[in-house]
Amino acid sequence: MKIVIQNGLVINSSDELHADVLIDADKVVALAVTGSELASSWTANADKVIDATGKYVLPGGVDAHTHMEMPFGGTVAADTFETGTRAAAWGGTTTIVDFAIQQKGSSLREGLDAWHAKAEGECAIDYAFHMIVSDVNEASLKEMDVLVGEGVTSFKLFMAYPGVLYSDDGQILRAMQRAGDNGGLIMMHAENGIAIDVLAAQALERGQTDPKYHGVVRRELLESEATHRAIQLARVAGSPLYIVHLSASQALDEVATARDMGLNVFAETCPQYLYLSTDDLAKPGFEGSKYVCSTPLRPVEHQAQLWKGLRTNDLSVVSTDHCPFCFKDQKELGIGDFTKIPNGLPGVESRMDLLHQGVVDGHISRRRWIEIACATPARMFGLYGRKGVLQPGADADVVIYDPKAEQVMSAETHHMNVDYSCYEGKRITGKVETVLSRGRVLIEDNAYHGRKGDGAYVPRETCQYLT
Amino acid sequence: MKIVIQNGLVINSSDELHADVLIDADKVVALAVTGSELASSWTANADKVIDATGKYVLPGGVDAHTHMEMPFGGTVAADTFETGTRAAAWGGTTTIVDFAIQQKGSSLREGLDAWHAKAEGECAIDYAFHMIVSDVNEASLKEMDVLVGEGVTSFKLFMAYPGVLYSDDGQILRAMQRAGDNGGLIMMHAENGIAIDVLAAQALERGQTDPKYHGVVRRELLESEATHRAIQLARVAGSPLYIVHLSASQALDEVATARDMGLNVFAETCPQYLYLSTDDLAKPGFEGSKYVCSTPLRPVEHQAQLWKGLRTNDLSVVSTDHCPFCFKDQKELGIGDFTKIPNGLPGVESRMDLLHQGVVDGHISRRRWIEIACATPARMFGLYGRKGVLQPGADADVVIYDPKAEQVMSAETHHMNVDYSCYEGKRITGKVETVLSRGRVLIEDNAYHGRKGDGAYVPRETCQYLT
Amino acid sequence: MKIVIQNGLVINSSDELHADVLIDADKVVALAVTGSELASSWTANADKVIDATGKYVLPGGVDAHTHMEMPFGGTVAADTFETGTRAAAWGGTTTIVDFAIQQKGSSLREGLDAWHAKAEGECAIDYAFHMIVSDVNEASLKEMDVLVGEGVTSFKLFMAYPGVLYSDDGQILRAMQRAGDNGGLIMMHAENGIAIDVLAAQALERGQTDPKYHGVVRRELLESEATHRAIQLARVAGSPLYIVHLSASQALDEVATARDMGLNVFAETCPQYLYLSTDDLAKPGFEGSKYVCSTPLRPVEHQAQLWKGLRTNDLSVVSTDHCPFCFKDQKELGIGDFTKIPNGLPGVESRMDLLHQGVVDGHISRRRWIEIACATPARMFGLYGRKGVLQPGADADVVIYDPKAEQVMSAETHHMNVDYSCYEGKRITGKVETVLSRGRVLIEDNAYHGRKGDGAYVPRETCQYLT
Amino acid sequence: MKIVIQNGLVINSSDELHADVLIDADKVVALAVTGSELASSWTANADKVIDATGKYVLPGGVDAHTHMEMPFGGTVAADTFETGTRAAAWGGTTTIVDFAIQQKGSSLREGLDAWHAKAEGECAIDYAFHMIVSDVNEASLKEMDVLVGEGVTSFKLFMAYPGVLYSDDGQILRAMQRAGDNGGLIMMHAENGIAIDVLAAQALERGQTDPKYHGVVRRELLESEATHRAIQLARVAGSPLYIVHLSASQALDEVATARDMGLNVFAETCPQYLYLSTDDLAKPGFEGSKYVCSTPLRPVEHQAQLWKGLRTNDLSVVSTDHCPFCFKDQKELGIGDFTKIPNGLPGVESRMDLLHQGVVDGHISRRRWIEIACATPARMFGLYGRKGVLQPGADADVVIYDPKAEQVMSAETHHMNVDYSCYEGKRITGKVETVLSRGRVLIEDNAYHGRKGDGAYVPRETCQYLT
Repeated sequence: MKIVIQNGLVINSSDELHADVLIDADKVVALAVTGSELASSWTANADKVIDATGKYVLPGGVDAHTHMEMPFGGTVAADTFETGTRAAAWGGTTTIVDFAIQQKGSSLREGLDAWHAKAEGECAIDYAFHMIVSDVNEASLKEMDVLVGEGVTSFKLFMAYPGVLYSDDGQILRAMQRAGDNGGLIMMHAENGIAIDVLAAQALERGQTDPKYHGVVRRELLESEATHRAIQLARVAGSPLYIVHLSASQALDEVATARDMGLNVFAETCPQYLYLSTDDLAKPGFEGSKYVCSTPLRPVEHQAQLWKGLRTNDLSVVSTDHCPFCFKDQKELGIGDFTKIPNGLPGVESRMDLLHQGVVDGHISRRRWIEIACATPARMFGLYGRKGVLQPGADADVVIYDPKAEQVMSAETHHMNVDYSCYEGKRITGKVETVLSRGRVLIEDNAYHGRKGDGAYVPRETCQYLT
Repeated sequence: MKIVIQNGLVINSSDELHADVLIDADKVVALAVTGSELASSWTANADKVIDATGKYVLPGGVDAHTHMEMPFGGTVAADTFETGTRAAAWGGTTTIVDFAIQQKGSSLREGLDAWHAKAEGECAIDYAFHMIVSDVNEASLKEMDVLVGEGVTSFKLFMAYPGVLYSDDGQILRAMQRAGDNGGLIMMHAENGIAIDVLAAQALERGQTDPKYHGVVRRELLESEATHRAIQLARVAGSPLYIVHLSASQALDEVATARDMGLNVFAETCPQYLYLSTDDLAKPGFEGSKYVCSTPLRPVEHQAQLWKGLRTNDLSVVSTDHCPFCFKDQKELGIGDFTKIPNGLPGVESRMDLLHQGVVDGHISRRRWIEIACATPARMFGLYGRKGVLQPGADADVVIYDPKAEQVMSAETHHMNVDYSCYEGKRITGKVETVLSRGRVLIEDNAYHGRKGDGAYVPRETCQYLT
Repeated sequence: MKIVIQNGLVINSSDELHADVLIDADKVVALAVTGSELASSWTANADKVIDATGKYVLPGGVDAHTHMEMPFGGTVAADTFETGTRAAAWGGTTTIVDFAIQQKGSSLREGLDAWHAKAEGECAIDYAFHMIVSDVNEASLKEMDVLVGEGVTSFKLFMAYPGVLYSDDGQILRAMQRAGDNGGLIMMHAENGIAIDVLAAQALERGQTDPKYHGVVRRELLESEATHRAIQLARVAGSPLYIVHLSASQALDEVATARDMGLNVFAETCPQYLYLSTDDLAKPGFEGSKYVCSTPLRPVEHQAQLWKGLRTNDLSVVSTDHCPFCFKDQKELGIGDFTKIPNGLPGVESRMDLLHQGVVDGHISRRRWIEIACATPARMFGLYGRKGVLQPGADADVVIYDPKAEQVMSAETHHMNVDYSCYEGKRITGKVETVLSRGRVLIEDNAYHGRKGDGAYVPRETCQYLT
Repeated sequence: MKIVIQNGLVINSSDELHADVLIDADKVVALAVTGSELASSWTANADKVIDATGKYVLPGGVDAHTHMEMPFGGTVAADTFETGTRAAAWGGTTTIVDFAIQQKGSSLREGLDAWHAKAEGECAIDYAFHMIVSDVNEASLKEMDVLVGEGVTSFKLFMAYPGVLYSDDGQILRAMQRAGDNGGLIMMHAENGIAIDVLAAQALERGQTDPKYHGVVRRELLESEATHRAIQLARVAGSPLYIVHLSASQALDEVATARDMGLNVFAETCPQYLYLSTDDLAKPGFEGSKYVCSTPLRPVEHQAQLWKGLRTNDLSVVSTDHCPFCFKDQKELGIGDFTKIPNGLPGVESRMDLLHQGVVDGHISRRRWIEIACATPARMFGLYGRKGVLQPGADADVVIYDPKAEQVMSAETHHMNVDYSCYEGKRITGKVETVLSRGRVLIEDNAYHGRKGDGAYVPRETCQYLT
């Protein structure tokens, strides 16, 4: 099956190019100058020709932070691998990296197997796994080496959630040392959870139970403190470090300082921190619960700093931290006690669009859009070359994007399995038109043409920034 | 009993003055221009006239960090309140603030009572107490308020020594909040003990048992990390903070940053960090054990940074952390395992001299010498006015200091109850000649004229930098 | 003539003390505990006893930056040495350091002689001189050495006012080298005048002629740039540096950075920058001209940063830059062209009061008030011991200050020779009650008891921070 | 003429790709997966097939800073456009941007015309021009707009060389304002030349005439000061800024700070600063003159900081500042007076190799090599797309590079018209094998196959980082 995509503007992180793309089976074979003799010759033998005149031709999005079907606080994230990856495809994302979870007292292997079982045969798009290490000990440290060999090359630790996912500084140090040796990348949820839990308990004692107190007690300084600490521990261990879902500008300052020193310290933020704020958390009634996630939303002035960080590359990646809970019955578990609200927001479908809106609004360039949404997450997590770039030899994960189309975001129209949208009614410019995953057309003519199980597990190489 | 001190150069932190000093009973009554009619009239009625021609007349030294008879690692610091305070007097120090210790599971009251019992009737000079809080809980938090009322207005917490003195970040935060309310000052041993313990265990596993590994595993970055963390927690709690025995220049940078922000963050260093280094820790055989203290000695290049910090006032106080263990039988507990070496050095006797050597060497001015050794520790811990300054109304704690005398430091000649000197054979310029404590002559003509129990307990006000 | 001041609270920069003060002729002889036998004995022999119950007893203020009778832009500052120093006395200032000016093409000597001629026999209080060097060349560099010997130990250079007072970076470097050798202190007007003149000309071309544009074109970044440059040149030259009338918080950041490095870099600000802002400059009509000075007033948010700088000691001195021009006929020279408005504000009389208001408002402590207004300027400019402190041996320059009195500031009631007040109608708490200058009563019972010529020229030592 | 380059590893700044390259006439038409059906089909129709097995296939180098035939200090740089561009080709550089110079008192046009006349018909490779503005005035400011329209979109100013190329801060500000409006990019030689000239004259007075004093008087702090000042002026003007030939780590710190703020501030360094040091300047006899350039070489410890800057992207470009003077007769003009030594080093031929050596030594990655040597200089100066990248539609400027070849650098073998090499005898790994310029083979089989005049003038767009 040969596909030619003609007349579009191919946008990679490094280049914008008027070129036609030749796809053979599941791979991109060649790019040639649009209108050249060579490019013109391709249509004759093509099984399918897509005219992308006036459109962008993009590598498929890579969302490096999702939590499908994740158990949290007595409930489970509302998107399954099936529904979540289908929604991702609708939004122009063709690869996700989800988090397998080690339960305390269990092995990494058990956790990873459980997540493989959840995902296998279910996904619309390709997927890979990070491993959450909840129980750092001799056995799990050894397993880290094995997992790196199997393509699970990144390990997430938590400085928050004492008693559940939390690791203490000694455990963190040991995991970092191991990753420094085996090439794994340590991902860090950087909040001082021990201190936060004290403040949360004090708030509840004072009768401060509304969702907005979730943001109040998770202080900005407790995110930046943990970020600083994680960086110093990584220096002691001699390992690289990737900070997940950074939301406070003070934490960004810590990352910038580290990067100025030439350290292998990286950070991601998420669309919610670029567009939403504590104003949303403070919405009347229990409405604010829709915006409860950790790290929390910050006051609106942090947004400009985060956009700046995306321009200076102190923030390298935008992932979603997709972890949706329905307002009804799920978020409502926390009525009267904000600490009981499941932490997480839906987002896997809207990332590419919201970042394109950042282009429209002048925050970032088109190339930077593709860099933070496709190329860098792929390179960070060992997928680049196959994923994250549209070039000869790459997987034929392609998005045809209409930069002029307008849309209104709504739970009515989105494909995520959740009963609200964080951006209900928001008007944005730009829309995914066609999506190919390894040469298969998933989205075309506003319809989904894929099947459950189209997506395959992709073992990953180690972080490509360190080689 | 009236005493006149004539013809000396009175040096306070703010001024150098050719003035005569009139003492009546235990107080300084007046200062008058030397040679003035008034000053000349004093000798007629004086019981004793001390001629200080060519000498400095100083307020007695205030050592805000000593550990007399402190239990540590199965042994007890070798100086009792009797021997230690007498040695202090010989060295020109007329006030110490020692640390009472709460045992885990006991109350602050029990700890404080125990220390009062050790000290009462034993001391050569005046003394006060800080309280080490080892067990932050509802009860001990409430006791903090009581202790402030009794003149124990500062509380030390440990980020090191897990399982013994360690408090976690939540406990620290709660204690800081309490101190923010009751006017207490939180003193912090800032080292990431959790991470250090991992590195220490790994070193021992590798067979690295010599004293020098004490310095290797207690990484500089783990001191600066903890210092940063303590500062951020203090900001969250809204409390002031005093970092004890700072030794790493990176920790100093954290303090400087905080102070530039106008925060009430203070730090002390100790003479050993100004004069000794990892070179001493690495001395052959088990000799290095003599230099084992925590925070550890640092590479020699840190010394210049610490002197600079004393000049810029990012370091405000020099205390001794006096906590001596004899080489024989005590330090030797750690042969074959550096983690078993009792942590601590002798120093209470040599602080004033070593800092005067800093004047001789051009590191600091004479006034700054008195400031960091007398005035600031007094003000920091609520003693200023009575202590730390030689002015009308102050306690008549006076040192006549000969700036030209030369001496050679040695365990042979020192008065501390310990079998070695960290500065054996070191030649220094300057020597204490006469010492008065509340108008009583303790040291004169190279002899000790005091008695056990001369010294009294001094309840303290709250930190005078915050009022 | 013996004077005793009883029952007051003596406040020095280092101490607050309930002590009585004995003055004999022009000197302070002794301080003794209030109520002591000794102090009580003094009244018997005293020629005059001042009861200061409930009052503060302060060292007289030292204003290190005044411009009496200064020629500027075709007119002359409205206060003569007679009127200006009398106003200073009313405000509790007993020493000024004024600026003698070298004219381009003339010698330092000629400039200094001219200023001596203006001041001699005219002053109410003691006075000294800095030297403005407008023409750095071989001859004037040599004269600098001579002047240091005569007690003119500080030299002001301008990075602003091209063609008039401006020195280029080469001239600045050479003067700094010389000062580095002869002990002189370089004072710097740090604004990039070359760039400012371009912006000013462009503003006038655009028809932007109102006073507020004075503030617009003298950009904050052009103050901080010049401050940074002056610091680097001082580092190259190996000389200390004193930044005058710092107003922009960015310039303060440069000073703080330098001071953290342990450099001998100092800065002063002025009351106008602590209390006034660009809002005043933008007052309707030509009213804004009353607030035209250089460096200019800044947006109101800088004030908090300057108060912070006074607390952290990155700002060490508050002087007035007193240089008054009447609104009528003088400020009016600039109607229709803001560059023609004479630069300068009245202030010598109100400094002590406005800084005491800073105490009342909680910005600084009482001791810090005396430090920035008396002790530090004295020490900075080689007067300390005689001036700036109330202690045995000091000149009997004493202010009895009523901290409870209330006053309303107004041109109606002030004693400066200028037809407006920058603080017209402002209510403040605290008032000078009695002023002694070298033992002579100048102000008492709301009347001036001094005579023209009471004040004497005071040769200065070199900066006492460097010895 | 169709050329196929087969089996090589195509390295762009963003990607490494096993792809074949199809060239038609002067353009790259397509890239296809090596070994694919499509790629295999190309050889049949090709006029020439180059086998690049085991070799890198690179975009031609872009050297954004050369001075061919530049008059300096009474002599002229030894390479003509003919000899210099031929040497560039030998070294794998296929585009230079040289500097046309406005003489003081003349127009930009006259300067540009003169340089066009020198270059036209002479060059081996494509060339473009920056404009040095020596005389900022109303007329030259207007000409800047015209030149931008003609493809001369960058303007160099000098803070050094007073009386010759120097612009004062007002002129700099005005030129920056203009560039801010017309899209031009200001390039800055950032050294405080006014201060340097004072130090140089003082050195000569002291008899310090040797080449090493060139480095001594051009103080690091005078480079960082000027860098800081240029950045602040650019902020005031609202313009981007490009710092040329940065050599001092302190200047790099200033750039890093600006970039952290998100400012459009960029900097280049040169190979000489990465490999040479003040040790070379201090070579015995007059040998040091071979290393005289401005900014000067720095102490060896700066090299690691510059490599770090290249990794963190605070240094974005490596250019050569190629400006060779023969040792004989040219450098010798400065015997007995280092200020008379012509400033400049040869380098255009060795840049690509020396940076590849940085890859071999582990300082930078292969992709980063191409980025700093090809892609970024092209993008910075409006050439990207045609130059700096090997992709469909680009000019067929291609280098086949043998990463395993070894060579010894020497004046014996280099092609620059200068009688010495700065790297005489240095062994390096990697060597240019084949060079194509717009599809023409210039270098192949160790021979030059081009002709004078092959290279064409390339008008440039404005800086592509700002669009």
